[in-house]
Amino acid sequence: MGDQTAYQSLTRTFQRLHHFGHLAAISSWDQAAMMPSKGNEARAAAQAELQVLMHQLITAPDLARQLQDAEQEALDETQRANLREIRREWSQANLLPEALVEAKALAAARCEHAWREQRRNNDWAGFLPNFREVLRLAREEAALLAEANGVSRYDALLDKYEPGMKSADIARIFDDVKSWLPGLIERVRAKQAAETVIRPKGPFPVDKQRALGLDVMRLLGFDFDAGRLDVSSHPFCGGVPEDVRITTRYREDDFVQSLMGIVHETGHARYEQNLPRDWLSQPVGRARSMGIHESQSLSFEMQLGRSRGFLQLIAPSIRAHFGDQPAFDADNLARLYTRVEPGYIRVDADELCYPAHVILRFEIERALIDGEIEAEDVPALWDEKMLAYLGLDTRGNYRDGCLQDIHWTDTFGYFPSYTLGAMYAAQYFATLRRQEPALDARVAAGDLAPVFDWLRDNIWSQGSRWDTGELVRRATGEALNPAHYRAHLEARYLG
Amino acid sequence: MGDQTAYQSLTRTFQRLHHFGHLAAISSWDQAAMMPSKGNEARAAAQAELQVLMHQLITAPDLARQLQDAEQEALDETQRANLREIRREWSQANLLPEALVEAKALAAARCEHAWREQRRNNDWAGFLPNFREVLRLAREEAALLAEANGVSRYDALLDKYEPGMKSADIARIFDDVKSWLPGLIERVRAKQAAETVIRPKGPFPVDKQRALGLDVMRLLGFDFDAGRLDVSSHPFCGGVPEDVRITTRYREDDFVQSLMGIVHETGHARYEQNLPRDWLSQPVGRARSMGIHESQSLSFEMQLGRSRGFLQLIAPSIRAHFGDQPAFDADNLARLYTRVEPGYIRVDADELCYPAHVILRFEIERALIDGEIEAEDVPALWDEKMLAYLGLDTRGNYRDGCLQDIHWTDTFGYFPSYTLGAMYAAQYFATLRRQEPALDARVAAGDLAPVFDWLRDNIWSQGSRWDTGELVRRATGEALNPAHYRAHLEARYLG
Repeated sequence: MGDQTAYQSLTRTFQRLHHFGHLAAISSWDQAAMMPSKGNEARAAAQAELQVLMHQLITAPDLARQLQDAEQEALDETQRANLREIRREWSQANLLPEALVEAKALAAARCEHAWREQRRNNDWAGFLPNFREVLRLAREEAALLAEANGVSRYDALLDKYEPGMKSADIARIFDDVKSWLPGLIERVRAKQAAETVIRPKGPFPVDKQRALGLDVMRLLGFDFDAGRLDVSSHPFCGGVPEDVRITTRYREDDFVQSLMGIVHETGHARYEQNLPRDWLSQPVGRARSMGIHESQSLSFEMQLGRSRGFLQLIAPSIRAHFGDQPAFDADNLARLYTRVEPGYIRVDADELCYPAHVILRFEIERALIDGEIEAEDVPALWDEKMLAYLGLDTRGNYRDGCLQDIHWTDTFGYFPSYTLGAMYAAQYFATLRRQEPALDARVAAGDLAPVFDWLRDNIWSQGSRWDTGELVRRATGEALNPAHYRAHLEARYLG
Repeated sequence: MGDQTAYQSLTRTFQRLHHFGHLAAISSWDQAAMMPSKGNEARAAAQAELQVLMHQLITAPDLARQLQDAEQEALDETQRANLREIRREWSQANLLPEALVEAKALAAARCEHAWREQRRNNDWAGFLPNFREVLRLAREEAALLAEANGVSRYDALLDKYEPGMKSADIARIFDDVKSWLPGLIERVRAKQAAETVIRPKGPFPVDKQRALGLDVMRLLGFDFDAGRLDVSSHPFCGGVPEDVRITTRYREDDFVQSLMGIVHETGHARYEQNLPRDWLSQPVGRARSMGIHESQSLSFEMQLGRSRGFLQLIAPSIRAHFGDQPAFDADNLARLYTRVEPGYIRVDADELCYPAHVILRFEIERALIDGEIEAEDVPALWDEKMLAYLGLDTRGNYRDGCLQDIHWTDTFGYFPSYTLGAMYAAQYFATLRRQEPALDARVAAGDLAPVFDWLRDNIWSQGSRWDTGELVRRATGEALNPAHYRAHLEARYLG
């Protein structure tokens, strides 16, 4: 050990964390996609043990000195970026006492477990005590991180998912969206009122939906030697870069959502499958941020997947699996996949209404963490904002209101990433279209290489080499510019 | 920590090991049943990291003193048995340096991974260098364990799977089997030459075979809330007691083998699913030995599964899934499942030829570990013994000869457990039949409770409370007595 540099010692610790993280990821995937019910208690105990171990590794007393020493060592550019990311992870972990990490894990598990039943039963009153405890611990975490980093409490949590991002900037961006989104939704709905959309007629057997999903994943370049498609009650992209596990869920009466869900998760998956191989065991080799991750799934789902050209391309596969129907005409598919209808549920929302769901949650969770409101204030605020942004009445309907998401049993500061991701994706495709004006025709003809090549070169292969701002500037020539997002929505929905 | 007894500290360490073992077990199952090929390298590295960690935990310097101190503490009978098992595991682990544990894991992963392809290609020359390295490390391990325990090298490895068993005793038992088995095979084949056996006519679609397998597992009491059935190239029983993962493999032209394979693995699974719940995190709560484990799978497969009564019981299920065929008559099924035909492949061997495969491997692996032969001597010895014991010529056929098993990519000293298990199972059923003379009629009528109750009371619920000899004596009134095995075979095949 004596002849190791401090930097080498650090990378060895992070390699160990990477290996243990591999086991944590696979066991979490298994829990969601494979595990029978009676396995839950033993699994939770095993995972908690691993989390404690990983926390101990990253809080070992040696690391502080190693970080200091490594700053003085001769490092190349990638190593220096890695050191920056190592310091970031180290700081976040070392500001939290082990007892808080453990208390958070237990409170989250309790809250999440009870939530499954409480959501079904519309039981806000039952949820509230567990939620208060989760919130109390999240505020405690936020306070510790905020004090150390000199930022607001909410910003301290946001920083875990969107390094460097400030909620004041997000609020400014979202306030702008709020100024034009309700009007845009209204105009689009008026325009679509005159359109005829033919709904596909089911049933659509699960095995055929799965076969179609696999075809589309192949078309999208998913590497099946380095990943799988399975089923879980909440679709996700998990596993590890060398072995990416995506999931979906099927309804026999409707294939439309599940299919686009697979396109979405395949976007996440290709990012993971194409991260820089030589750096996978180190923080610099990981995905840049949750917003950038979401920008990949939304590049696939929104920019590519719901485009007229792509739907024309996959229409023959849909017919091959389900037989011919008038609904499978490419123009009809395009109308189906761009239909705008405000609804209660975020995960079912269309592209245009989705940001309203996110902005509402951002505003509420920011006020919760910054202590401006309390847990019991959530339902009234939810009702007020749903009415203002989407014109929907959610009073008394907790199940389809503030109890619908799993996030707040555990996580605050994540929601903005969804809409930031949509904005990044729109900005990428604006760049791509400038570089390749024939993009849509090439997609319709089955040539997806321009999309894959651009994303691989500019995003996937870069890992965490640059901070988010620099990554986006290098890829598109400018910082995050939400004008591309608005232009994309207006072009697609009013063009 | 100060107010913990030494025994409590030890049990906490073994609880941690249990939790990490859970993750190791699930990730191994995943590797065999789910993982795509490109995941292998990262998985092997993650598993090796976990093995090193577990090795560090069990070799922590505190444990030696805690073991000494715990011997002086007031413990009840089960705690004392637990302390005995803790000491056993501790001793074995503490004799191995960490570097050897890691080198073994890496060499095994490399050898096993290449073997998949090499076996297909009949490539003994390609296998040999990896095998030499695996053997070199196994000998190193054996030497360390042998010196410390004052036993032969092979006995030191054997003891990992069959605590307390000596290869001299096994050799004596196997020499006796060799004195009557070839003659018995000959007589049975002469008798069966006059029999007509109708082969089932395929194809048997995989989904129907799976449905039949699940039916039979239900009949055999498998708890599907605490386990699963999946597919792997080499069937096994894995996972954890709270979540048992069994696998099979299907051939569309034959369901007979796969079905009985499922019965076999279900025997392993019920042992695991019925180990004492309160002690699962401790060594005393685990399965007694590999031979006792095998005695459960063989109680299900050989004693119960191939019996006339059981086959009569499941014949209607077979018809329900595949339609009616003359082959599905219970008498014909019984002839089919007791047909004796010497063949190359151990896992395909019938009940009567199976021990010949085991004895051959025992003799070769014992000579390998004790240094009497070298890796390159294996094929010639294999050929010689296959000819002597089963009258088969295997020259040049490595694929169906010495490359057929996965064991030697990793494991030496395990093979005897298969035939010891068959002997224990015969001894249990001799006892059971004395206690319940109407056993076969009850089985044929669908009442399997006598079998399950006896195994639960005498074996499953006992975990590792007693050493193997005591467990078998308490269950059957005598030590291992291979006479029951010979009597069972003669009664079934000549009776």
